Amino acid sequence: MPTTPPVPAEPSRPVDVRALFLGPQAENREFFEQAVSSLIDEHVHWRRDFHPTDAPVFGPAQMRDPSFTAVQDRTRELLETLTGRLKSTSTPWFSTRYLGHMNSDTLMVANLAEIATILYNPNNVAYESSVATSQMETEVGADFARLMGYDPARSWGHITTDGSVSNYEALWLARNLKSFPRAVSAVLPELVERLDEWALLNMAPEAVLCLLDKAKSDKVAFAKVLAASSRGAGAGHGGLGKVLVPASRHYSWDKATDLLGIGVNNLVPVPVDSRYRMDLGALRSVIDELVAARIPVLALVGVVGTTEEGAIDDIAGMRDIIIEARERGVNFYFHIDAAYGGYGRALFLDDEHNFMPEDELRARLHGAGLASQGTWPSHEVWSAYEAMSSADSVTIDPHKMGYVPYAAGGITLRDRRILGLISYSAAYVFEDPDNLELSLGSVILEGSKSGMVAAGVWASHRLIPLTHDGYGQLIGRSWTGAQTFAQLLQTQAEIDVAGRRVLCQLLMDDPDFNIVCMAFNVEGNEDLTRMNALNTEVYHRFSYEYGPLYQDDWITSHTDLDRAVYGQIPVDLVKRLGIAEAEWDRVGRVVVLRSCVMHPWIADGAPYPERWQSYLSIITDQLERILTTEGADYQGPAPVGLDPHP
Amino acid sequence: MPTTPPVPAEPSRPVDVRALFLGPQAENREFFEQAVSSLIDEHVHWRRDFHPTDAPVFGPAQMRDPSFTAVQDRTRELLETLTGRLKSTSTPWFSTRYLGHMNSDTLMVANLAEIATILYNPNNVAYESSVATSQMETEVGADFARLMGYDPARSWGHITTDGSVSNYEALWLARNLKSFPRAVSAVLPELVERLDEWALLNMAPEAVLCLLDKAKSDKVAFAKVLAASSRGAGAGHGGLGKVLVPASRHYSWDKATDLLGIGVNNLVPVPVDSRYRMDLGALRSVIDELVAARIPVLALVGVVGTTEEGAIDDIAGMRDIIIEARERGVNFYFHIDAAYGGYGRALFLDDEHNFMPEDELRARLHGAGLASQGTWPSHEVWSAYEAMSSADSVTIDPHKMGYVPYAAGGITLRDRRILGLISYSAAYVFEDPDNLELSLGSVILEGSKSGMVAAGVWASHRLIPLTHDGYGQLIGRSWTGAQTFAQLLQTQAEIDVAGRRVLCQLLMDDPDFNIVCMAFNVEGNEDLTRMNALNTEVYHRFSYEYGPLYQDDWITSHTDLDRAVYGQIPVDLVKRLGIAEAEWDRVGRVVVLRSCVMHPWIADGAPYPERWQSYLSIITDQLERILTTEGADYQGPAPVGLDPHP
Repeated sequence: MPTTPPVPAEPSRPVDVRALFLGPQAENREFFEQAVSSLIDEHVHWRRDFHPTDAPVFGPAQMRDPSFTAVQDRTRELLETLTGRLKSTSTPWFSTRYLGHMNSDTLMVANLAEIATILYNPNNVAYESSVATSQMETEVGADFARLMGYDPARSWGHITTDGSVSNYEALWLARNLKSFPRAVSAVLPELVERLDEWALLNMAPEAVLCLLDKAKSDKVAFAKVLAASSRGAGAGHGGLGKVLVPASRHYSWDKATDLLGIGVNNLVPVPVDSRYRMDLGALRSVIDELVAARIPVLALVGVVGTTEEGAIDDIAGMRDIIIEARERGVNFYFHIDAAYGGYGRALFLDDEHNFMPEDELRARLHGAGLASQGTWPSHEVWSAYEAMSSADSVTIDPHKMGYVPYAAGGITLRDRRILGLISYSAAYVFEDPDNLELSLGSVILEGSKSGMVAAGVWASHRLIPLTHDGYGQLIGRSWTGAQTFAQLLQTQAEIDVAGRRVLCQLLMDDPDFNIVCMAFNVEGNEDLTRMNALNTEVYHRFSYEYGPLYQDDWITSHTDLDRAVYGQIPVDLVKRLGIAEAEWDRVGRVVVLRSCVMHPWIADGAPYPERWQSYLSIITDQLERILTTEGADYQGPAPVGLDPHP
Repeated sequence: MPTTPPVPAEPSRPVDVRALFLGPQAENREFFEQAVSSLIDEHVHWRRDFHPTDAPVFGPAQMRDPSFTAVQDRTRELLETLTGRLKSTSTPWFSTRYLGHMNSDTLMVANLAEIATILYNPNNVAYESSVATSQMETEVGADFARLMGYDPARSWGHITTDGSVSNYEALWLARNLKSFPRAVSAVLPELVERLDEWALLNMAPEAVLCLLDKAKSDKVAFAKVLAASSRGAGAGHGGLGKVLVPASRHYSWDKATDLLGIGVNNLVPVPVDSRYRMDLGALRSVIDELVAARIPVLALVGVVGTTEEGAIDDIAGMRDIIIEARERGVNFYFHIDAAYGGYGRALFLDDEHNFMPEDELRARLHGAGLASQGTWPSHEVWSAYEAMSSADSVTIDPHKMGYVPYAAGGITLRDRRILGLISYSAAYVFEDPDNLELSLGSVILEGSKSGMVAAGVWASHRLIPLTHDGYGQLIGRSWTGAQTFAQLLQTQAEIDVAGRRVLCQLLMDDPDFNIVCMAFNVEGNEDLTRMNALNTEVYHRFSYEYGPLYQDDWITSHTDLDRAVYGQIPVDLVKRLGIAEAEWDRVGRVVVLRSCVMHPWIADGAPYPERWQSYLSIITDQLERILTTEGADYQGPAPVGLDPHP
């Protein structure tokens, strides 16, 4: 296999984020258009220069045939239909007016690299079909591992189609790992002498991998061990234990336990605390109860960046609990679902990828005019990111905070020997990471996969290092923008609209990540159903549901906080809006508006203090329209003093 | 939700395939370049026209900052590195000289639609993030279903990232379906009175779906049923039965049984016959033995287009066996893995999507100058395609015979009610197919997914209908090209090279689909190891392994036929090349060259009879170089008469 050509050295830093995006007004259009034209030209000439003396398969005369021009005309017509539909219904994620899902403009370099690659059409399932982009995916995998603080000599990573698939792959690894020691005990009992069933189900992941190393020295016996493990014998009926997740987990974890034959009944949602992070007291209790009942823990999942609240689980605390459990012989796989927040770790890494002390981090942020309020990131957030390297695997999505187009997920593994438990290649393959790209499809969940996406992520990582001065500049601006937005809203806890007073409260005043959740209520309204109707209507008016997005002044998203998931935690928000706990007990859900601030254009308010004011007046205008709509039941009480709510 | 705008009517047919591709010499470059430029321009102006009075986030002065130009310079440098790597290592799939994997040039309209869409960056996980491309994915799913002859009122389909994921999803459905009646029996026994365990495990798929309809009327009880099924309780240890696949199946089926917790031990490879199709006598025996042992069949999988030989299983015969089994109370899920051959069904459909009789099909083919040898497609192939509509679900990959870029797989389901068994939405959602796109991620395996790919497949299907005159024109040319290639090689059963005679034999003289497998042997060589070394070396010289592909005159692929998979079937080929069966028994594998003829440029030899001659002389030249290489052990015996092989 050819050696990877060297990549030229990286430019001086920090990266100038303005030159990364096409821009809200297509500010960088000349650069972008010229680059696209040049990339297409390069491809065309590549074709023409491959055996240039081969005759064309048709010439200009045929191209004038009516059947030929009919196809051209139809192609143009379809492309116009396509762009017409896209333009009339797409969300203008590029705009500073979009503060909804975790979407924004995507990196020019990613788009250009994907456009450059599409016509070469590499398939990263195997090196043979994608020499260049397979090498790039290997580099990206190493980037992910380095970002998480993993040992490059032992770790590995790759691109997936999205974080759900990454989560499935992680749980597949965890499940087969959990079942392995018992299978060894059945086939090669001499390797696990003196270990009872409980000990076999509670072996530490590193110990299982050492056992795997021993078992694979005898190929015939090793095949029998695999056949006796989950891989061969099936997943059973819960005997491998429970999967512990925060109640706030993404629903892909429910799907994962179903898909993998573990069963959703074996997924244990651990309650969240007032910060919407996994409640570690509850986690300790759950583990204690399971151990008392002699039920193993198959895996513990921490979330770095919940998709609804942007909450970051206390990973350091989870690490401590794992160490405590280990001391009493209880071990399990530890995965972090950082699909959303994973790239955030770049902010904490210096140029040599060392995790920076809090003081140093804060000094560099303030030096760049970011996070100027001084207290952010909190010690808890810093500690959580620091502790991520203790996980056995991490999900991370380039199509979220990596600012690359869909669909690009990722996963990184602390110790690549574990691939021997899910692979359809010989186990020795994993001794050399360069071998893995030769037949990637045989060591991961997916089969055929896009090399185009690998090129997009690779080019993004090479332009913007996964360090403070690279991606950290984007993340820092995104987080700072969210803080600034939260602070603006805090100064507007009461808005006078159409003779009524509208209360505005944030779910959390100082969010862990870049999501700001908020809710409105008309002062005096004590009916949670009405408050939910009001916030639903506000969402409708700032979303695709109310007509063409292109006409919207501001666009946001929403979410439901449901008692089945969050218990009594949202009561705090509801009460701050003047609604009694009894109403929560009656209704059991609260609708909140949800703004993810991803783009870098509004950090610290500058240069757009007026933009903030404009958001507020847009919101106020819509509230006024809603509250003055005849007969709408989300109005709450009529203006105070005229027709009070009974 | 807005209604889907109408698509203009389709052009007159048959489609002119020359206008579909950029072309081996970039013949259509002017059209392509102009379209790209126009699409980028459209996007740029869409941005500029969204609130045009918003101030730009930076201006020309900032764009001259050294930090800004440094990013631009670095972006250019990276794109040049990328295209340099792509150009030096990519396989020239567009060329008529490429006859290897199932790859060729991809459709211009697919590439253009994807380039048009990338900057809008839709995410088809939910309608809200992708109004236009979610509608397109719904249309594409309906296309898949109609292609398979499914009832539009009951069926459904969607795009996946690739055929492996489609296969996982199908087996997920099959597994949860199999477990459902027992779960009903546990929770709502009155619904399945008088049915014993065996009957519950042998309920026909349609009957299970009717049972699902009954069960879901009581929401609380229905949730308990799901919790008692595989979804909630786990996959168990093989109690749901065996998954029957042809021995020739793709390895994603091994991965599928592992991933889904069914266990690879419960995958039963049924031997293939001399046509490399599932041996139906063997299938009957397997089913008889399982029934005798009271072991259920979880699912039967037929393959339409094996990836190694292009073999098409006798789907009509499998349908008959399913009907026979039903008569004795044995029922199971039936899936067809047509990742490769699925689009082939378009050839058999007239303009109204009716499956054409053999005579009509042949008349239309001959009228278009295709398949002029007269006997193809064989009655077996015609029958297999006809019978595909009897399957419960079908995997079909646009990125194979759909001629669209990676990664684009697909799946279609005969009865969408089955989604209730894997979904994380309320079951009533499936009563209206338009609802499914609202939260696609909650009813399929994947989560976030590319709307760009949906646009590419949609535009391709709208330009080229899934009928004889649309995709059939591509498939017909591809198959005809393969036949022509096979016939050429048959006329060259012996080639004189460097004083030796080299034998050439095809794996099958009349392949079912568009793959031609062949092997060479030096006359007089009776050593299978040497013959394998010769064919491996021929492959190396026509692949990336021997240096830059750009210098290759011809490019092919290879595969191994291994005794563990194929039993004694390959003995026929080996013997035709002058090697005794005892050698097969000793070595147990034979290396064959594998040429998939996908591009439409060489159908019926015209207009390139000389191209065929050129392939032959390229092969002959390489054989000469190989056979005259000093000391190489794949040479076989020295020239006959001088130093005969002992």
